[in-house]
Amino acid sequence: MLAQEGSRGLTHRAVDAAAEVPTGTTSNYFRSRRALLEGLVERIGERLAPSEEDLRRRESAEPGPPLFADYVRDIVRRLMADRDVTLALFELRLEAARRPEVAAVLGAWQRAGFDADVAFNTAAGLPGGRREIALFHYAIDGLLLDRLTAPIDPDSSTDDAIDALVAGLLR
Amino acid sequence: MLAQEGSRGLTHRAVDAAAEVPTGTTSNYFRSRRALLEGLVERIGERLAPSEEDLRRRESAEPGPPLFADYVRDIVRRLMADRDVTLALFELRLEAARRPEVAAVLGAWQRAGFDADVAFNTAAGLPGGRREIALFHYAIDGLLLDRLTAPIDPDSSTDDAIDALVAGLLR
Repeated sequence: MLAQEGSRGLTHRAVDAAAEVPTGTTSNYFRSRRALLEGLVERIGERLAPSEEDLRRRESAEPGPPLFADYVRDIVRRLMADRDVTLALFELRLEAARRPEVAAVLGAWQRAGFDADVAFNTAAGLPGGRREIALFHYAIDGLLLDRLTAPIDPDSSTDDAIDALVAGLLR
Repeated sequence: MLAQEGSRGLTHRAVDAAAEVPTGTTSNYFRSRRALLEGLVERIGERLAPSEEDLRRRESAEPGPPLFADYVRDIVRRLMADRDVTLALFELRLEAARRPEVAAVLGAWQRAGFDADVAFNTAAGLPGGRREIALFHYAIDGLLLDRLTAPIDPDSSTDDAIDALVAGLLR
């Protein structure tokens, strides 16, 4: 709904209709708009998480820039494949610029995700610290926004862009 | 209106109301939604363009990475200062993912802007070609989206992020 209608379309009643459940069901499970938003970002997190198999397969790999690039390509692949979820996240970010209650829920979730990324990277012995990982977040968000909307350079390869980012930004 | 209400709020009538002009005025000047969109992106371009003075001041500077960084900082400064215009552009990008007619207008405008950036860079003898400038577009879009919505690392400096991007991505 967020991807297709934008954040203004997100109401308890619209969720009832989209999920084909009786009117009032969504309000029953998520009492407030804040609770609905929290349920939403939690579910987005689940849908975008790497699979157990994805993680296991990489556990034995050498922790260097190629493995880091491999993780980034995998993240981008998941976000591009789950196009509506990624667009929904962008919708929520813009809604956060308008509504402090959305900024509170989304901001807390995003900062926790960012801290977890930094911790994962350190635990896995991968290159790049907090500063570099922040740069990757910005660049990958911008790359996805470009590729999923109106690309500035449609004939260029997404993988080449990722490789160039890894080559340049990973110290 | 785009920044405050999202793209669903953008109608000829809503523009009449916001501009405090008689109903029908906007339709009179912009006959279709496409014409309204074209007028909008043209006006966004004007509002975000560097001033003559900005350009003149840099004309005599040595064309190297520090000058490139200076241009990027100036772009980010303008986009952050004109927050509503930048958010409006993000709204239009998400609307482009939903509506092909928006993707056509916005995509053409963005590709022309990107080509002009590459041509400006080359003419000014600045480092970085098409590929590097595309990476800067992605990274700066993501950085702005972060800073204007719910930042992942609110205490970090925007200028430091720009300097790290220039140090890493400019070949």
